[in-house]
Amino acid sequence: MPIQPPSIPKGTRDFSPDEMTRRNYIFDTIKQVFQRYGYLPIETPAMETLSTLMGKCGEEEDKLLFKILNLGNFLSKIEPDELKNINSKNLTAKISEKGLRYDLTIPFARYVVQHQHQITFPFKRYQIQPVWRADRPQKSRYREFYQCDVDVIGSNSLLNEVELIQIIDNVFEKLRINTIVKINNRKILYGIAEIINQADKFLVITIAIDKLQKIGISKVNEELIQKGISKKAVNQLQPIINLSGGNDEKINKLKKILENSEIGLKGIEEIQTIFNYLQNLSVKLEIELDLTLARGLNYYTGTIIEVNAKNTAIGSICGGGRYDDLTGVFGLQDISGVGISFGADRIYDVLNQLNLFPENLASITKLMFVNFGKNEEKYCLPLLEKIRKAGINAEIYPSSAKIKKQMTYANNKNIPYVALIGENEMNQGIINLKNMTTGEQNMVSMEELIKIII
Amino acid sequence: MPIQPPSIPKGTRDFSPDEMTRRNYIFDTIKQVFQRYGYLPIETPAMETLSTLMGKCGEEEDKLLFKILNLGNFLSKIEPDELKNINSKNLTAKISEKGLRYDLTIPFARYVVQHQHQITFPFKRYQIQPVWRADRPQKSRYREFYQCDVDVIGSNSLLNEVELIQIIDNVFEKLRINTIVKINNRKILYGIAEIINQADKFLVITIAIDKLQKIGISKVNEELIQKGISKKAVNQLQPIINLSGGNDEKINKLKKILENSEIGLKGIEEIQTIFNYLQNLSVKLEIELDLTLARGLNYYTGTIIEVNAKNTAIGSICGGGRYDDLTGVFGLQDISGVGISFGADRIYDVLNQLNLFPENLASITKLMFVNFGKNEEKYCLPLLEKIRKAGINAEIYPSSAKIKKQMTYANNKNIPYVALIGENEMNQGIINLKNMTTGEQNMVSMEELIKIII
Repeated sequence: MPIQPPSIPKGTRDFSPDEMTRRNYIFDTIKQVFQRYGYLPIETPAMETLSTLMGKCGEEEDKLLFKILNLGNFLSKIEPDELKNINSKNLTAKISEKGLRYDLTIPFARYVVQHQHQITFPFKRYQIQPVWRADRPQKSRYREFYQCDVDVIGSNSLLNEVELIQIIDNVFEKLRINTIVKINNRKILYGIAEIINQADKFLVITIAIDKLQKIGISKVNEELIQKGISKKAVNQLQPIINLSGGNDEKINKLKKILENSEIGLKGIEEIQTIFNYLQNLSVKLEIELDLTLARGLNYYTGTIIEVNAKNTAIGSICGGGRYDDLTGVFGLQDISGVGISFGADRIYDVLNQLNLFPENLASITKLMFVNFGKNEEKYCLPLLEKIRKAGINAEIYPSSAKIKKQMTYANNKNIPYVALIGENEMNQGIINLKNMTTGEQNMVSMEELIKIII
Repeated sequence: MPIQPPSIPKGTRDFSPDEMTRRNYIFDTIKQVFQRYGYLPIETPAMETLSTLMGKCGEEEDKLLFKILNLGNFLSKIEPDELKNINSKNLTAKISEKGLRYDLTIPFARYVVQHQHQITFPFKRYQIQPVWRADRPQKSRYREFYQCDVDVIGSNSLLNEVELIQIIDNVFEKLRINTIVKINNRKILYGIAEIINQADKFLVITIAIDKLQKIGISKVNEELIQKGISKKAVNQLQPIINLSGGNDEKINKLKKILENSEIGLKGIEEIQTIFNYLQNLSVKLEIELDLTLARGLNYYTGTIIEVNAKNTAIGSICGGGRYDDLTGVFGLQDISGVGISFGADRIYDVLNQLNLFPENLASITKLMFVNFGKNEEKYCLPLLEKIRKAGINAEIYPSSAKIKKQMTYANNKNIPYVALIGENEMNQGIINLKNMTTGEQNMVSMEELIKIII
């Protein structure tokens, strides 16, 4: 058998130790902040039944599911004649019952309904796991990537929105990313649709407006007209979309515009409440009321949020909003929730591009003993044991290879200190400690070594 | 559309916050020890190409793969006539090119070969990720479970074996699990096969002996005879398998038995070298040379190890061994490695069964502010901000629900402290702090509160 050159599926990635360390820096930062606000972790299986996954986000999303082939003799229940004329879609329905999760929101909704009697509401959970999408792979878009979701469900208090904004503030302050937070409210968007007499086309309007950043205003208008919005209504929409000024100014103008829409005014009130809370807190984020922020997903019903990093074109790195009936589709009605999702892979790209990863991340291992041979090795092993007990990550090169090779190994692994113990050092009971950054070498005792490195 | 009762696929699990906390305790302990010895993390994709996964461990294992349906119109290249008479196995080969990884060893071998020019050898890596097996679900056997693998590849030094034993010692000491470590060497097993003139049936013998614990000696003997081992040879095998005494005694007897097998003697020498190293170290593990330990996997060639917890029937919770040519199948020859895998799910079951989880694990959130209404809420939010900045995980109940409901929430979430701030406390600038374990309540300042909780 000819030997195959090894490779991995398109759109997936291996992560080397260096990449892992950087990724874990992001995950650990996010996790710590989530916990600081009382959110607790859950995990759900990679596979869900297709009946859970499908028909929740839209047909486009259903096409992006990776489907798992049924086990065993999965054709046994299909007649050969039926098979002859079957197409891929119909066959799929007969031979696949499971798929890989597409996001963490649907599995969360499923979890809440399934375990509703064990859960104490309001339920504050976070979830950091990979998701899979059969998207066309391209730059910063992968078929396997991590989402970091934080949601509170079973409370309609706007305090939750405020808390999520605090979380965004804390996470990006810790990661040293300058961001701009865009905020809007789907009730305001609904109010606007009402005012221009297109309330029944509310979803069409949000889906079109959602594309504004990507395709520009003229294409958005084209789409609106194509979808049956009258030219007059599209014209009425323009000044509202282009509303200028600071947040207070926009709010005041909007109050006028929406004075005949009860729902619209409710949306404004919600935004104002959130802004009022924030005034008493030390949130440093730049927050902008952006009426063109729509977020396409059908299930949002109130506040919507999106975070972009400044000084890069990478796009949204965090986003979310309030949903009043996410669990309804699984049979649990009237449970309001709000949540956001941090895109770890995009945050990674931002930190990389702007050179914002801390410098000392790379060195997990702090010390390497050079291996000079069997006697020295035997002498070093109990020392190494003590050093590890003191809490220092340390290793000994496993064989007495050439010193240069051993030093290169330590260097490549970013190990900051190397201990050299030859006959001389053994006789004197001391350690020759080399600082790999400065090149400096010093004779030290065990106690001194531990103090220096720890 | 009737609403579906939500469920998850057979053999998979959701993990609640309580379970997650316990699982993370295991993962964090293992991870910390791995890093203490200089091992660095990698991750590989959940999906691998089937050509990577298949034909590596055996036909039985191939059947346990979850396979992913190809994307799009996957039937387009199959003639309708061909489809009419196709069976499940042949159709699978045509419509599926990817599968979920079955273990972390094969992806690791693939990783090493694929990235060989970026890797500095010896490569010490750990990997903690889920794997998927289409096994029949049963107690303590799941279709999705985590493995925690630690391997060093590119070094044949026995120091690596010693290090792995130290790691086992450290992990189970930290987790407070009493274990017994069984050790053997495939070279000894090969030597035994040579001595009874069945060297060509070495694999058959190891696979049969591997089942000793499960099926007993008489069934093993039956299998050996069935597989073509002569009755004489099977008889010769018995006293060797039943070799009694301490490790030194066994080694001395074995040296006699294997005096004509070069490979067998090499195996004994390796075991002895490992025991010698360990004498100078403070490893407290009970280690037993067990000649019936065989570990079925074909790729082991030297030391093999298995760890069982005492006082439970849960079975092996960690195991592994040395392989001299794991990467050969992907085109990189002669790279020796050694590694072990910790079974997190079984370790979880042991800790649960023996009641060994630390008591204070459950409370991630340390403090809850009771919400008495809008004024109190407004007063509490900046306090909460300070407390979080001090590093304390804290939250405020998001609405002014009935006090009893709020206290139940704190209780269910295992929050150890609750802060009550009503009008009185606001006027005096103090906090009524309730210890939820003792029921004790005290009036304290912010500074005192932080000192108490931190």
